[in-house]
Amino acid sequence: MGEFDLIQRFFSWPTPRAVLGVGDDCALLAPSAGMHMAISTDTLISGRHFFPDVDPQALGHKALAVNLSDLAACGARPVAFVLALALPEVKDAWLEAFAKGLFDLAQAHGCELIGGDTTRGPLTITITVFGEVPNTPTEAASHGVSTGALLRSGAQVGDDIYASGSVGDAALALRALQGKITLPDSLMAAARARLERPEPRVALGLALRGVATACADVSDGLRGDLDHILESSQVGATLQRDALGSLLATRKNYPGAASAFDAAFGDFAAQCVLGGGDDYELVFTAPESKRLAVAKAAELSATPVTRIGQVVLAHGITLMDASGKALPSLAVGDFASFDHFSLG
Amino acid sequence: MGEFDLIQRFFSWPTPRAVLGVGDDCALLAPSAGMHMAISTDTLISGRHFFPDVDPQALGHKALAVNLSDLAACGARPVAFVLALALPEVKDAWLEAFAKGLFDLAQAHGCELIGGDTTRGPLTITITVFGEVPNTPTEAASHGVSTGALLRSGAQVGDDIYASGSVGDAALALRALQGKITLPDSLMAAARARLERPEPRVALGLALRGVATACADVSDGLRGDLDHILESSQVGATLQRDALGSLLATRKNYPGAASAFDAAFGDFAAQCVLGGGDDYELVFTAPESKRLAVAKAAELSATPVTRIGQVVLAHGITLMDASGKALPSLAVGDFASFDHFSLG
Repeated sequence: MGEFDLIQRFFSWPTPRAVLGVGDDCALLAPSAGMHMAISTDTLISGRHFFPDVDPQALGHKALAVNLSDLAACGARPVAFVLALALPEVKDAWLEAFAKGLFDLAQAHGCELIGGDTTRGPLTITITVFGEVPNTPTEAASHGVSTGALLRSGAQVGDDIYASGSVGDAALALRALQGKITLPDSLMAAARARLERPEPRVALGLALRGVATACADVSDGLRGDLDHILESSQVGATLQRDALGSLLATRKNYPGAASAFDAAFGDFAAQCVLGGGDDYELVFTAPESKRLAVAKAAELSATPVTRIGQVVLAHGITLMDASGKALPSLAVGDFASFDHFSLG
Repeated sequence: MGEFDLIQRFFSWPTPRAVLGVGDDCALLAPSAGMHMAISTDTLISGRHFFPDVDPQALGHKALAVNLSDLAACGARPVAFVLALALPEVKDAWLEAFAKGLFDLAQAHGCELIGGDTTRGPLTITITVFGEVPNTPTEAASHGVSTGALLRSGAQVGDDIYASGSVGDAALALRALQGKITLPDSLMAAARARLERPEPRVALGLALRGVATACADVSDGLRGDLDHILESSQVGATLQRDALGSLLATRKNYPGAASAFDAAFGDFAAQCVLGGGDDYELVFTAPESKRLAVAKAAELSATPVTRIGQVVLAHGITLMDASGKALPSLAVGDFASFDHFSLG
């Protein structure tokens, strides 16, 4: 099957929003008035970002999800994407399932496939995604760049720090799949779904426009991605250990409760929460005066949100116990952020 | 070296046009009023699109050039691009040279690197490029889509067919590098430059706005890319054999002239012209009444243009000799277009 047949058969889908979709030298988009175009690109490589035998439908979903997650972090509404797909061979059943996972998520977010490139090579999926954000700055985000997008650079001393959904479960599932730990069957399916079928927090990102002062998506690990916010904003943070622990759904639902989980997995779990990666949640900051607005954004987007700490003047991250006592830095500092490049 | 250090060191460049460049979850572009955004994506994979030991500076150039060529084919002005780069290892000298090739061409076209993704993996370069075209249709291109872009679908019966620059030399160089043929040293360097450092015809594409009725870039072979125009426009073509022969610079400059070249390479050369690929020239159509305008566009953009045939009603491509006699279809039909996917 040639490239053109392959695209025709598996990757042709209506593109009502685009001026011109797949099939010419370029796709054409008509940007909406008063909007900036938000753009992000992410690559998934077989054997690095996913197991070669992963369910292709889940892979199609994830390849788009990780890109939509970047739009979510900016408070951008998805519009369209292009797909560069390298395939070692053409297997109909695989491609059908991959396309189903991809287009199901694309349709759920009104995000159209408008172009791409298909070639033979080691299985690699690169998606570039396009979204729209208002071009007028909001009150909350006054950080030099004139845009309504949520950026990393707007965190202010005194702001609350929040994380959405659950964090660390994807990393826990990865370690279980690698045979490093064993999770109860009853929890493994849910943890694995977090790894293989992340749901990008697009609705939350949209609801946080004008509320959050800074935002990033948690793709490389909560600590690393929060660090991006802190460095861009030139501030530091204190984090509540108990709040971090509550982010791990596997711990919350563990048979015999959290204490049994902690006895079994201990610091290992903290490592997954802080440095695990692949969560595709949002970490964001907002002034204390916006606590009600944050709660409303969470409700509006049907996305759980947990307050996990506070922005402070002193750079770096300090972990605190329930009594407000700083804990040894080891519990945080030794867990490097997930970095797709430096991992062996 | 981690991903962030690598980007900081090799891929940080000013982005005055972008609202926000590299370094946040998304890049932000402010589309110009009255413009459509033209978008294209192309992947180069080691061992398939280039030799693993290719000069990295040439590779950086080519990775962007093949994408700019798609903008040229639409008559779009380059604005920005994102780069997804998978590297098997981090070698400073290699990355420096690659970045130099990339940014030299980017600067020449005012095209800013606004984002990307760097990861470890088999050497793969995916660039997605953004350009602008007027959103108002021109007189020349009235083919259903309301845009000022040059599309494939506007060719009219009676239109002239043109190709820019030289065609087939890249394929000839590839076959020489593969050891299938031997080219005189005096010609090999030029042919190899066509393969490894193609110059996208952006200026010609811009000058053809409102002049050409249809346009495509010659990336997969002249015949295949002309076929895209003919199929999209639901027309056919006659091509002048002598004009096609004149497109091959290596033949034109061959010691002992064209007849000596033909004796040495014969149909092999026709194969390179018609089905070779990797030329990154433009093939386009324009009404006979626009011959002067085409000549002016060629002059304005300092790009040679050759009239190679005519659009006809009967579908398919017929090759004609100088006396207007149709030649056996073998000379054209047996040379399939270059298809990155079906090549072994």
